Amino acid sequence: MADYIRTTIKDLERFVVDVMKKLDVPEDDARIVADVLIRADRRGVESHGVARLRRYVNGLKDGLMNPHPNIKIVKETPVSMLVDGDAGLGMVVTYNTMKKCIEKAKENYMCFAAIRNSNHYGIAGYYSLMALEAGLIGFSVTNAAPLVVPTFGKDAALGTNPISFAVPANKERPFVLDMATSTVPRGKLEVYNRMGKKIPLSWATDENGAPTDNAAHVLENLKQRKGGGLLPLGGGEEETGGHKGYGLAMLVDILSGVFSGGAFGLNVYGKKNAPPNVCHFVGAIRPDTFVSEEELKDGMDGLIQMVKNAPKREGKDRIYIHGEKEFEKEEENQDTVPLYIKVYEDLAKIGEEFGIEPPTKVK
Amino acid sequence: MADYIRTTIKDLERFVVDVMKKLDVPEDDARIVADVLIRADRRGVESHGVARLRRYVNGLKDGLMNPHPNIKIVKETPVSMLVDGDAGLGMVVTYNTMKKCIEKAKENYMCFAAIRNSNHYGIAGYYSLMALEAGLIGFSVTNAAPLVVPTFGKDAALGTNPISFAVPANKERPFVLDMATSTVPRGKLEVYNRMGKKIPLSWATDENGAPTDNAAHVLENLKQRKGGGLLPLGGGEEETGGHKGYGLAMLVDILSGVFSGGAFGLNVYGKKNAPPNVCHFVGAIRPDTFVSEEELKDGMDGLIQMVKNAPKREGKDRIYIHGEKEFEKEEENQDTVPLYIKVYEDLAKIGEEFGIEPPTKVK
Repeated sequence: MADYIRTTIKDLERFVVDVMKKLDVPEDDARIVADVLIRADRRGVESHGVARLRRYVNGLKDGLMNPHPNIKIVKETPVSMLVDGDAGLGMVVTYNTMKKCIEKAKENYMCFAAIRNSNHYGIAGYYSLMALEAGLIGFSVTNAAPLVVPTFGKDAALGTNPISFAVPANKERPFVLDMATSTVPRGKLEVYNRMGKKIPLSWATDENGAPTDNAAHVLENLKQRKGGGLLPLGGGEEETGGHKGYGLAMLVDILSGVFSGGAFGLNVYGKKNAPPNVCHFVGAIRPDTFVSEEELKDGMDGLIQMVKNAPKREGKDRIYIHGEKEFEKEEENQDTVPLYIKVYEDLAKIGEEFGIEPPTKVK
Repeated sequence: MADYIRTTIKDLERFVVDVMKKLDVPEDDARIVADVLIRADRRGVESHGVARLRRYVNGLKDGLMNPHPNIKIVKETPVSMLVDGDAGLGMVVTYNTMKKCIEKAKENYMCFAAIRNSNHYGIAGYYSLMALEAGLIGFSVTNAAPLVVPTFGKDAALGTNPISFAVPANKERPFVLDMATSTVPRGKLEVYNRMGKKIPLSWATDENGAPTDNAAHVLENLKQRKGGGLLPLGGGEEETGGHKGYGLAMLVDILSGVFSGGAFGLNVYGKKNAPPNVCHFVGAIRPDTFVSEEELKDGMDGLIQMVKNAPKREGKDRIYIHGEKEFEKEEENQDTVPLYIKVYEDLAKIGEEFGIEPPTKVK
């Protein structure tokens, strides 16, 4: 961990909030942004943590992200909402929508919201965790910049379109699925590139649609929109199930982009210098909608224990439940979080720009 | 296609209905069973077609499947049902539940049903197609016999747990995802085994949890419960995303088995000589829940055309949308369906047992 420093969560929060405030984001909204980003770092999902602050700073500076969005419920039923995010920060738009979704679900057993005209919302899991913390089951998906190549295609047309689903248990930790529908997200290629490691052939293709082990080449192609991109979960062939990952990416784009009447596929980040139109779909379900809450939680304990206690293959001493690694990380990172040194340096640069003290390094 | 013969759909229907009736299944229910099985054959999903008739015959003969189930709504809200299938045939239980779900969704925008104490229900897509044909969006998942090995595990603990989601379009065919959450279903190993072909290493593991290319060995191990099994979508390693397919299998088991208070994981076919306790989860959503129905369908056209028209990789001239191949097959198989010769021979044997004329071969 020589490449990492640590800061206190409090100090990092102070820093993010102050930067956002300098960009005209109201304090309450700035706190939401800080909480979503830092929770990703605490949970070990550093690709979606404060490392992304620069993007939000640029979006606000360039006028592509709206610090004072008029978040509007365009249409509402007892169990659904259609929301327009007015180009606001994705975290602010989705946090507020999920809050309302939770209220409505408490009343009517479930509620789902399709959100259009938003921006990148951080980790999908943040919003399903919100439902969980309110005593409900949570669901959250989003479309994203087109980086993923459909099966038999040559160029990226769909996002890494993640799916999160969170269900409470009783004695066990909750089940929290939070997965990109591509084999890996772009951040993983960046990590391998940094280490000078070859990537597995099921991760990405070159500009001709052929599988490649060269991360730098794929990243450069994506940046310059030269073709190729990430492969869906299952890889590049039907034989290995690539059409399934591609189908899940479609499903997420339908829920987010089509259900909301917003942008999908290539249109999400379609026009140069125009605000992106990222769309999300979130939902909450009362745990007593089908069986009772107690039965549901006991059932979750039963399933989780059954799988955790199943025989391990040679060389492995543990089967992980989804979310387990992240909860353990979060417990490890109670007061302080590790930051990759280059991420810290970038934060310091942002601080300099705005005359804000960077978060202090701690041991 | 030398290994295949064809029969008319009408005659095949007559045959399945008569067999079911001999087993004390009421005529209306027998027609549902026939329709679900034959629709799979028509759509080219032969692993889930009349090839499975033998299993239902045995289940009824052994008293493990109930020909006169008392299908009961145990609990109901405006947008949900908890249903007990009373060990009925999975198709009969789920067809009736989906009918009711569709009615409720028409009234209240959406409805989801968790079903316990059922049996294998055929293709997941049948029920999402039912919603589609009623003008709605459809959702259908089911747990299944434990054949899939969780990441880092040695033995199968979860089912191939398929996910189906169907959304109508306007000018384009509907999007109909219908996928096992394993890389491939067991039937695919049977096909490779028949052809004497090696299977890719991302499909299955041997009794020690090591990837294997030997289909016969895996099938034998599964039959005898000796260990090993199918791999989740993404294969056997986290590096290739296997934990994601495993997570999706968990999600399906939670919706089906845990939400319904039924069986999950190893308990689905847990006890010898006891009725299986297969659980399903289905739902329907009105297409005007979020945007208007017209906007939704136009959006679907837009997304589908965008992806279909995207540049193809070398050697490919088409990008398929999910369900497209199956709809084309179904159009091909309007009046007659192809049956694998061994499947036909097995039907003939069943016919002999019950004194029922097998379906006539046609050209």
